[in-house]
Amino acid sequence: MSRSYHVAVVGATGAVGVEMIKTLEKRNFPVGELSLFASARSKGKTLVYKGQQLPVQELTHDCFKGVEIALFSAGASRSREFAADAVKAGAVVVDNSSAFRMDADVPLVVPEINPEDIKLHKGIIANPNCSTIIMLMPLWPLHRAARLRRVIVSTYQAASGAGAQAMRELEDQTRDVLAGRPAVPKVMPHRYAFNLFSHNSKVAENGYNEEENKMVKETWKILHDDTIKVCPTCIRVPVLRAHSESIVAEFEKPLSVAQARELLSKAPGIKLVDERERNLFPMPIDATEQYDCLVGRIREDLSHPNSLALFVAGDQLLKGAALNAVQIAEHLIA
Amino acid sequence: MSRSYHVAVVGATGAVGVEMIKTLEKRNFPVGELSLFASARSKGKTLVYKGQQLPVQELTHDCFKGVEIALFSAGASRSREFAADAVKAGAVVVDNSSAFRMDADVPLVVPEINPEDIKLHKGIIANPNCSTIIMLMPLWPLHRAARLRRVIVSTYQAASGAGAQAMRELEDQTRDVLAGRPAVPKVMPHRYAFNLFSHNSKVAENGYNEEENKMVKETWKILHDDTIKVCPTCIRVPVLRAHSESIVAEFEKPLSVAQARELLSKAPGIKLVDERERNLFPMPIDATEQYDCLVGRIREDLSHPNSLALFVAGDQLLKGAALNAVQIAEHLIA
Repeated sequence: MSRSYHVAVVGATGAVGVEMIKTLEKRNFPVGELSLFASARSKGKTLVYKGQQLPVQELTHDCFKGVEIALFSAGASRSREFAADAVKAGAVVVDNSSAFRMDADVPLVVPEINPEDIKLHKGIIANPNCSTIIMLMPLWPLHRAARLRRVIVSTYQAASGAGAQAMRELEDQTRDVLAGRPAVPKVMPHRYAFNLFSHNSKVAENGYNEEENKMVKETWKILHDDTIKVCPTCIRVPVLRAHSESIVAEFEKPLSVAQARELLSKAPGIKLVDERERNLFPMPIDATEQYDCLVGRIREDLSHPNSLALFVAGDQLLKGAALNAVQIAEHLIA
Repeated sequence: MSRSYHVAVVGATGAVGVEMIKTLEKRNFPVGELSLFASARSKGKTLVYKGQQLPVQELTHDCFKGVEIALFSAGASRSREFAADAVKAGAVVVDNSSAFRMDADVPLVVPEINPEDIKLHKGIIANPNCSTIIMLMPLWPLHRAARLRRVIVSTYQAASGAGAQAMRELEDQTRDVLAGRPAVPKVMPHRYAFNLFSHNSKVAENGYNEEENKMVKETWKILHDDTIKVCPTCIRVPVLRAHSESIVAEFEKPLSVAQARELLSKAPGIKLVDERERNLFPMPIDATEQYDCLVGRIREDLSHPNSLALFVAGDQLLKGAALNAVQIAEHLIA
C-alpha cells in the first residue's frame, strides 16, 4: 500500500482553506491525518472532510508536531510568523500568501508550468498570486511555441480574492441597494454592489498597485525570464469567485490564431470556450468550481503583428489558490 | 430675444430618450416646442419636461412637420426608416444609432474633439458609439500633444448600453439569484447577475464583435486618422449605467505622466480622479449622472516607451449618448 501523509491546512476556515479541504478530498490526496488550524476565534468550530467532522484547532508555534505537508492560507503575516515553525517540525510548507514568493530560495510554482522548480525547495514552496496564475495558464503554451515578449492585461477580479467576508459584503450590499437601503462598505474600500473599482491594494511609487506589481514580478520568476514586459491593470468587479482577464500578448515569433487554438486545446488545465457563432466565451459563472481555466476570444491583435488577444476566466479559489497548492503537494509526494 | 427651436426626441421612452429630455431641460436648450415620438406601443404615455406632462406620439413617416432638430435614439432600423422623413421635413437629425455613422456624408462627432465636422452635415449628424466616445474623451488631448499611434482597450460596459430592459433584467435577476431562485436570461444572452460576458453583439469574420469593430472604425473617422491602431475587447459587467475602460495608449512622442495629468486636468468634459494615497480612481457609480468622464490611474506603461496606461469611467446614457447628442444640437444652433 502506498503511504499516506499528515497534512495540515492553516487558515482552514477561510474561503481558500475550505476549498483546500474540499480539493484534498475530491482529488483523493493520500491524507493519513488532517489537522485544521485557524486563529483562536475559530476554535471550537468543526469542518467536514470525507464525511467526518474535524475540529478546528488554534494555530500556535508548536502545533505542527508530526505534520508532513502544511498548506498555508492565512495571510502573509501569519505565514511569516508560523511557516518556520512548520518547517522546523519537519513539514514542507505550500504557502498561498505573498510572504515568501519573491525569496530567492523559495520556488514559486504553477505545476503545469514550472514543476521542476518544486524540488529546489528548502522547506517552503510559494503559490503564486491568483491573477498571475490565471494569466499564465493560457500564456505558457503560447510562450513555449513563440516566446512571449510583452503582455497587456486588464483583470476583472472577483470578491473571493479578498476573502469570504468580501464575498458576503458583495451579496449583502447588493441586497441593500436593491431594497433601496444605503450601501455601506465595510470590508472593501468602496461600494461594491453594481460597481467596480481599482484593486484594493496599496499603490506603489510606480503608480501600480501591489496586485499589479505582483503580476509583473511573479511572471518573471515563474517563467525564469525578466525580459518579458508586463503592463497590468487590476480591477475588482461585482462577481463572486472567478477572475477574468483580457490579455493582449506579443510574441517573438509569428503565432496564428489556429496555432494558438491548437496549442491551448491540448494544454493541461485549459478548456477552450471560443464559440463565435453562439457568442459563447469564458464567463466567471462557468469557471466557478471548475479546475480548468476557460480560454476564448482568441484573435489576432488588430494593432500589432505577432500579437494575439484572448480572454480567460478561472476560479480564483481553485486554480488561483487551493487547487494550485494541492497540485504542488501532489508533485511533492510523487 | 434669441430664437427657440421645435425639437423632437425619437425613441422618447427609451433609456437614452428619457435622458435626452432631461438633458435638454437641465442645459436649458432653447426648446420652443418639444415633440416626443415612440413606437405605437408607447402611445398614450406622457413624459415630463419642465414640469409639464407631454404626450408621447406615434412615430410615423409624416410626424415631423415643423420639427427643426430631431434627436433620434430608437435603434438603427428605426433611424434607417424615419431619419430621411425628418430631413425631408426640414429638420437636422442627430442620430444616436449606428445606422449612418460610417456614411461618408454623415459627420460623426464628439463636440470636444471634432466640432468643425458638424457644419459638413447634409441633414444627418451621427452620435458615435458610447464606448468610442468614452475612450476618445481622455485620448484626444493626449493625441493632440503626442500623436496617438496604438490603443489597447478593455471595456467594462454597463447594462444601460443594451437599454432600459437590460438594466431591469440585471436588477431583477440579481434579486432572484440572491433569493436562491434561478437566473433566467431574457434580454441578455447569458446570466448577468454576478457575472460578466463578452459583448452581446455579433462576432465578425475578424473575430471582433460589432462593438469592438465600431471602436476601431469610429476612432479613425472622428480623429481623421486611420493609421491609429486599435485593439479593443468589449465586456459587459454587472453595472447599471456607466461604462469603464482600461486603456493603454502608445504615442509617437514622449508624454510623461505629469504632462498627461496636466493636459487632462484642463480638458473640457474630463474630471481627474487619480488619488493614489486614497486608492480613489474612476468608478462607474461616481460617473453615473455626471456629464464629465472620470479619468485616473494615469501611469507609465511598464511594457513600452512613449506609452501610458489609464482608466476612464463615463455615464453611458449621458456622455455616451444623450449629452453628446444635445451638445451637437447646441453647436448646430450656435
